[in-house]
Amino acid sequence: MQPTPPTTLAPRVLARDLASVEPGEQATLAGWIHRRRVLASVTFLVLRDRSGLAQVVVRDRETVEQLAGLPEETVVQVSGTVSANGSAPGGAELVEPVITALTEPAVPPPTELWRPTFGAGLPTHLDHAAVTLRHPRHRAAWQLASASMRGFRSALGALDFTEIATPKLVGTATESGANVFTVDYFGRTAYLAQSPQLYKQMLVGVFERVFEVGPVFRAEPHDTVRHLAQYTSLDAELGFVRDHRDVLAVLREAVAGMVASIGEYAADAAALLGVELPMVPDELPVIHFREALARVGADPDEPDLSPAHERALSEWARAAYGSDFLAVEGYPMAKRPFYTHPQPGDERWSNSFDLLFRGLELTTGGQRLHRPSDYAAAMRRTGTDSSVLAGYLDAFAHGMPPHGGFAIGLERWVGRLTGAENIREVALFPRDLHRLEP
Amino acid sequence: MQPTPPTTLAPRVLARDLASVEPGEQATLAGWIHRRRVLASVTFLVLRDRSGLAQVVVRDRETVEQLAGLPEETVVQVSGTVSANGSAPGGAELVEPVITALTEPAVPPPTELWRPTFGAGLPTHLDHAAVTLRHPRHRAAWQLASASMRGFRSALGALDFTEIATPKLVGTATESGANVFTVDYFGRTAYLAQSPQLYKQMLVGVFERVFEVGPVFRAEPHDTVRHLAQYTSLDAELGFVRDHRDVLAVLREAVAGMVASIGEYAADAAALLGVELPMVPDELPVIHFREALARVGADPDEPDLSPAHERALSEWARAAYGSDFLAVEGYPMAKRPFYTHPQPGDERWSNSFDLLFRGLELTTGGQRLHRPSDYAAAMRRTGTDSSVLAGYLDAFAHGMPPHGGFAIGLERWVGRLTGAENIREVALFPRDLHRLEP
Repeated sequence: MQPTPPTTLAPRVLARDLASVEPGEQATLAGWIHRRRVLASVTFLVLRDRSGLAQVVVRDRETVEQLAGLPEETVVQVSGTVSANGSAPGGAELVEPVITALTEPAVPPPTELWRPTFGAGLPTHLDHAAVTLRHPRHRAAWQLASASMRGFRSALGALDFTEIATPKLVGTATESGANVFTVDYFGRTAYLAQSPQLYKQMLVGVFERVFEVGPVFRAEPHDTVRHLAQYTSLDAELGFVRDHRDVLAVLREAVAGMVASIGEYAADAAALLGVELPMVPDELPVIHFREALARVGADPDEPDLSPAHERALSEWARAAYGSDFLAVEGYPMAKRPFYTHPQPGDERWSNSFDLLFRGLELTTGGQRLHRPSDYAAAMRRTGTDSSVLAGYLDAFAHGMPPHGGFAIGLERWVGRLTGAENIREVALFPRDLHRLEP
Repeated sequence: MQPTPPTTLAPRVLARDLASVEPGEQATLAGWIHRRRVLASVTFLVLRDRSGLAQVVVRDRETVEQLAGLPEETVVQVSGTVSANGSAPGGAELVEPVITALTEPAVPPPTELWRPTFGAGLPTHLDHAAVTLRHPRHRAAWQLASASMRGFRSALGALDFTEIATPKLVGTATESGANVFTVDYFGRTAYLAQSPQLYKQMLVGVFERVFEVGPVFRAEPHDTVRHLAQYTSLDAELGFVRDHRDVLAVLREAVAGMVASIGEYAADAAALLGVELPMVPDELPVIHFREALARVGADPDEPDLSPAHERALSEWARAAYGSDFLAVEGYPMAKRPFYTHPQPGDERWSNSFDLLFRGLELTTGGQRLHRPSDYAAAMRRTGTDSSVLAGYLDAFAHGMPPHGGFAIGLERWVGRLTGAENIREVALFPRDLHRLEP
């Protein structure tokens, strides 16, 4: 191996902090060459670091020539004199710079990352994600995701939830046999968990209130703009609820925490993407499935809401309640999984809900069965093989409280916030029917 | 399905808050029947909820008889009068109770969960984890894990790290071809990621500082007390470091955050398990691998430290520095993965480290290569096929800063804290060569 010189990094100022350095003082920035603008008498170097952009003004001929050999995306350290300039980002810039490359000159990216709009199509982005994710709009989308996870955990932590980590390798296809990936598990067949559903229920028996933020896997055989083979699920489950309305109250806190966290930690990202932060009322408006069908003029025997129905209902909720969210409760039992708790008094309906967010289903949740005899009946009714679920059913035989929960798809949430046409635009390295790289 | 009566839950007081209710006032507890103690003139019901234990005193004959039909682990709601009693947990108990079962009478657990020590062996625990995790010592071990994750994120969040979520389904066996699970991916072969290593490096190019808490998968073909087929990895990676010492400084913050979080959120759990919180000095002591070998009297050509060496070095660090941690830097390049940065000036050694914690390796980390030409040389030197890593190498060609990172195994950390003999004791639903259930 070629010996490489030791890295000598001077104490560094972030781009966002440049304006707080006294003009005339020396400062060192470090980051990526975002853009070079060569004019007749001056060259502007725009430097990008994790905090944003900073402008460096290059006048001396030698440095201009040096910069000509350092293409966009080369990583450099720039030391110079801070100068106030109202038209520079943040109101300050660096002049009389000394530029040190921290790596070799970069290969130019497949599309110019300094342009405000990403200049290539989605396939180019996904093929070159290691580089094109650096585009400020792509970075910003994931910053919304990162802040959302933080807010979700913070809200649930304050409510005494315990974080769990459940098996992703499972012996049986948990919720349904379809769309499940199989794994060679030491010569046996294992499956990738489609959700932590059964585990989070069991762990309500241990901790009462649990959450998990982790990957879930769906072998989705269709190429759609809404589905990924792996996505991040924000899961919660809690015991000692009266019914699904108590679950919905916690979901409201989780969503409010996510929105507040974006405001606190990703406000710049939201502004860059033109994201209007959702309105989260103190209590989420709720409509019964039956009434929802009536409101959109659908056949009362419809088993589900169509995308057009979901959009119409969301518009109504926004107008009537000033809410970007609407919970539809009471979905027909026939369409819900075996552990769903029926609506007391009318068992056609369930104590479960979908949460619509700006026209799209964001979350499914509700109350689950908790009595062992109800599980036995549900297994018979739905033809579920109870032998493969023995470990799960154990929890109920040994005493489980009334409980319920929900799951939010992180990428779906961010996609809806940003108005992305394709969920792949807001995932880091999406996986689908055709894509397993990079 | 049998109709089940709607659940009627009264406003609830947690066990830990019972003593703050005015004696003589009414209160309602809800939880699991942890233990019934039937004496001649009185029956004690010990109720367990997420906050701890509470004592209920039953004297009237009818309630004593009712309780005889409600075995341990049955979930109940208990309303009664609060009474001060210095010998009850927390200093208060509930008297003249009205007990309402919230589910059917429980099947007794495979071993009595109220005994202070778990009374059965590890196989019984693992076979019945959905129930036996409720034992206070098992709950407590995971509460340490949950608090540790919280502290890790909090420390890195404060240092401007972005949380990432990377693919667990990958097209190539990332770090080595061994011990990797294969997945049927829409008819192609995919692998379960053994670590987020390559992705977190690529994302340093996007966010500079990233972390991930998530599952990693190792098809470990040996049945050992230290390895799991799935564990939770606390990963971090950061750019613009001078060398691995800057990485170590961040690792110190992460570990200090984990310890502080246990003190804040899981102090009771730590006390129950007799966990002495580790001492984390302001700066972690560091010894070079070469000197470490000399200190333990090993052959200077040894390529690795033995478990006995690690124990001896840890004892020395505790005596010499008052530290439960010791970083060993400079491990031989020959034993490190291809992306490892050599030690400037003497390339037999590397800019990487192991962090020893109370006699055991907790973490491996260090500086990585960042120049494209260094990667090309490393691929040649180690015989790594660069074509399968094209997406990863892209990041370096397009400009990457000097960077490094580390990974902490969550279950290993908790196992060392609690002194568990087998890592399976501190995982929620461990997976290994023989175990895929529950």
